[in-house]
Amino acid sequence: MLTHIDLSKKMSKKEFKPKYEELSATLSALQREARKLKIPIIIVFEGWAASGKGTQINMLLQALDPRGFEVHTTKPTAGEDAMYPYLCRFWKKTPARGVISIFDHSWYIDPFTNPKSEKYPARCQQCIDFERELVDDGNLIIKFFLHISKKEQKKRLAELAENENTSWRVDEHDLEQNRRYDDKCAEFSETIRLTDTPYCPWYIVEAEDKEYAAVKIMSVVIAKIQAQIELMQSPRPNPDDFDQLSDYRNYVLNGVDLTKTISKDEYKEQLLKLQSRLRLLHAKMYRERVPLVCVFEGWDAAGKGGAIRRLTEKLDPRGYNVVPSSAPNDIEKAHNHLWRYWTKMPKAGHAAIFDRSWYGRVMVERIEGFCTTDEWQRAYREINNIERNLYDADTVICKFWLHIDPDEQEKRFMERRDNPQKSWKLTDEDWRNREKWDEYVTAVDEMLVRTSTPYAPWTVVEANDKYYARIKVLKTVVEALEKRMGIDSEK
Amino acid sequence: MLTHIDLSKKMSKKEFKPKYEELSATLSALQREARKLKIPIIIVFEGWAASGKGTQINMLLQALDPRGFEVHTTKPTAGEDAMYPYLCRFWKKTPARGVISIFDHSWYIDPFTNPKSEKYPARCQQCIDFERELVDDGNLIIKFFLHISKKEQKKRLAELAENENTSWRVDEHDLEQNRRYDDKCAEFSETIRLTDTPYCPWYIVEAEDKEYAAVKIMSVVIAKIQAQIELMQSPRPNPDDFDQLSDYRNYVLNGVDLTKTISKDEYKEQLLKLQSRLRLLHAKMYRERVPLVCVFEGWDAAGKGGAIRRLTEKLDPRGYNVVPSSAPNDIEKAHNHLWRYWTKMPKAGHAAIFDRSWYGRVMVERIEGFCTTDEWQRAYREINNIERNLYDADTVICKFWLHIDPDEQEKRFMERRDNPQKSWKLTDEDWRNREKWDEYVTAVDEMLVRTSTPYAPWTVVEANDKYYARIKVLKTVVEALEKRMGIDSEK
Repeated sequence: MLTHIDLSKKMSKKEFKPKYEELSATLSALQREARKLKIPIIIVFEGWAASGKGTQINMLLQALDPRGFEVHTTKPTAGEDAMYPYLCRFWKKTPARGVISIFDHSWYIDPFTNPKSEKYPARCQQCIDFERELVDDGNLIIKFFLHISKKEQKKRLAELAENENTSWRVDEHDLEQNRRYDDKCAEFSETIRLTDTPYCPWYIVEAEDKEYAAVKIMSVVIAKIQAQIELMQSPRPNPDDFDQLSDYRNYVLNGVDLTKTISKDEYKEQLLKLQSRLRLLHAKMYRERVPLVCVFEGWDAAGKGGAIRRLTEKLDPRGYNVVPSSAPNDIEKAHNHLWRYWTKMPKAGHAAIFDRSWYGRVMVERIEGFCTTDEWQRAYREINNIERNLYDADTVICKFWLHIDPDEQEKRFMERRDNPQKSWKLTDEDWRNREKWDEYVTAVDEMLVRTSTPYAPWTVVEANDKYYARIKVLKTVVEALEKRMGIDSEK
Repeated sequence: MLTHIDLSKKMSKKEFKPKYEELSATLSALQREARKLKIPIIIVFEGWAASGKGTQINMLLQALDPRGFEVHTTKPTAGEDAMYPYLCRFWKKTPARGVISIFDHSWYIDPFTNPKSEKYPARCQQCIDFERELVDDGNLIIKFFLHISKKEQKKRLAELAENENTSWRVDEHDLEQNRRYDDKCAEFSETIRLTDTPYCPWYIVEAEDKEYAAVKIMSVVIAKIQAQIELMQSPRPNPDDFDQLSDYRNYVLNGVDLTKTISKDEYKEQLLKLQSRLRLLHAKMYRERVPLVCVFEGWDAAGKGGAIRRLTEKLDPRGYNVVPSSAPNDIEKAHNHLWRYWTKMPKAGHAAIFDRSWYGRVMVERIEGFCTTDEWQRAYREINNIERNLYDADTVICKFWLHIDPDEQEKRFMERRDNPQKSWKLTDEDWRNREKWDEYVTAVDEMLVRTSTPYAPWTVVEANDKYYARIKVLKTVVEALEKRMGIDSEK
């Protein structure tokens, strides 16, 4: 998930100062109220080495009454600590009622540091069980992960190392983290996904710009304390309370380069090659009983149909199924919203290609209000579960978001309107959806972040150029199958 | 957990007939109401071979309108089914809104059949995630496990095999289950514990007497449907709705043989032997850094203090700690109820002996109303989590319930009252607790069933004879330590 996030968010110093003062005043008042209400508050800071945890903690503390908080710095488990049950030292540091405990690293130290340990799954489970117990008991827990890019981290580590006052802060472990950045990124993402719960979600902070990060962190803390105070007053909080946070969400689509393109000649050549490789792989899949699931999502007119046609053109039709997602029928409506997809899953050796899918819940249904806030919010977990089930059945999973910009969409709509053979494809609904472009961007960003997993990754396809998009789709499927079946790509 | 349950519950045929008719009428009316409200209902039957699942399903069906239910029989995953993701065939069979689906075996077929498969943890997780999604979506799921003893199962299998009309129903797999009964019992228990959730708990049915079992099953189904209907009318159900079920709880203490006794001479001999073995083990524990946790719970005057004294008498005092549980102090009160125990956990190589413990929540606090129903109900999960954490830190865990009968307790109270050296031990509270004997039995039964785990088992100690009790405690601890440290008992 981390790899998807756009890290370019910034805030000018001029804009920052009054904002910070305003947030500080609000936070300080909320701290007093939370104290009166005896709410124990836990704030966790995790993140990359040199991502600025210390700076951010300081900026937060300056807004707080010093008599009401404690800061705990957590080192990797060693020495005396290693002689106690893992959670012991963290349980001891949980705040008394009315106190704020801030953790610079936390119970996530072990899962983040040793993701390959055999204790890793148990540790992740312990972390979320621990949080569940504290939340059930009235604690508010806020978890931040400070995210920076490989390049930024490298730069910061070099700067720290060069300065004799700070060089002691850089150790071999930090440098190793930077060298293995991509692996670490995948490992961090998986830990975050496994420990992201409805009662205690992670907030990923784009931490390249420290002003932006500070404002995001304080805004989240303020919104969460306010929500907790309301929760104590009414048993059913309104999830829309978090609307004020929408400015501080994680961006993904922002960072997609839509100028990518290939020539028609190259397209033709690649298409033939990839289709014939896929044809062989499809036969091999069948013999080795490997199931394949492809999911196509994307903007209206982004070219899903064309990409699917190029994908299936040369395949044996007995070995695949294209599943369109029309509106559910009466029988489907009488069941759980996932039921109709479960009835369409491929058996071993077969492929199922979903033209739109179970992601409807967190896009169109979310935006059009076809389901409740509670329903689409829990759908992320349901979706991750479905895909985990597929993975557990050894399924190769490829998910595509076909991305175009609004201008390109308009151009394509116009072409459809003016072409009698294509005009049936264009409906009033398409125009209406277009008006909600920004809402869709928010929903898609969240979807891409929260449902990217190592075994069911999203591929964002730059689709302003149809040729480029079709080749990228084919290539992704071919490579995923080759990887699973242990074939060296002859590229 | 299953081993603890008292299977002697019975109901006479005379009593049964009117009860069954009454329950049938209620159930039939509730089915119509649930249909009107479009509640999808799932009833799962699992249990031992020859535990009478078929009979029980038939008795339940006779009360239902045949147009409103479906029965699904599940065979072990094989053939075509094995080619789909595991949950596929169960998802397809989930009921439409307003329908009752009854499963003769279910998605638990894999976890129950193959607990040693590497997919086992994932399967258990899939089962509870699946149920979570259905429950979130308004489904009511009721899970029964039909439990019979090894002896009863053997008898039933023999009867089935002898009769030529039924002999086809007994296969090698069933006979194997009976031969490996004790192992299977531990495996079933673990699966039940892992998949026992607040939103979808297991109901263990004592199935040796088929009338008793039928009445229990129907009563549970009725109570659950009623609660679900109420839930749809008010968002926060009253957990006391289940009070009517208290007659059908699982019994444990019922079955304890309190006549066990040993002579004073044997006591003295054994005591010396065991204490010197324990002394050596304690030193070895220290060297090998094995932590030990002993938990003592039991009736007032059951002899906890005496047993703890005999346990620690010969040990190096630097290597253990006895932790009494007095009322929490102000600092402790300002934290989560488990916080004070986390601060007392032993470090590697040390022993902590808890004279009363975190089990207070599900006994005295439950009965005296010191916590809410919701709090003590979720405490079972919290307790299992604590002990799982200890286990994960390689802790040897021994938990004792010292059991005496009310007459023995009265005798001991009188002795204390009349003995000036002991009278301080007896308080008014002891007499008050005594009046709540039956409530405690209910709470203790539930505690023993729900918190017995392979790594933190309960030992129920027959303590009417103090000598017998002390020896059993010492022996249990000695054997647990020997087992952990790989020593052959020289008994």
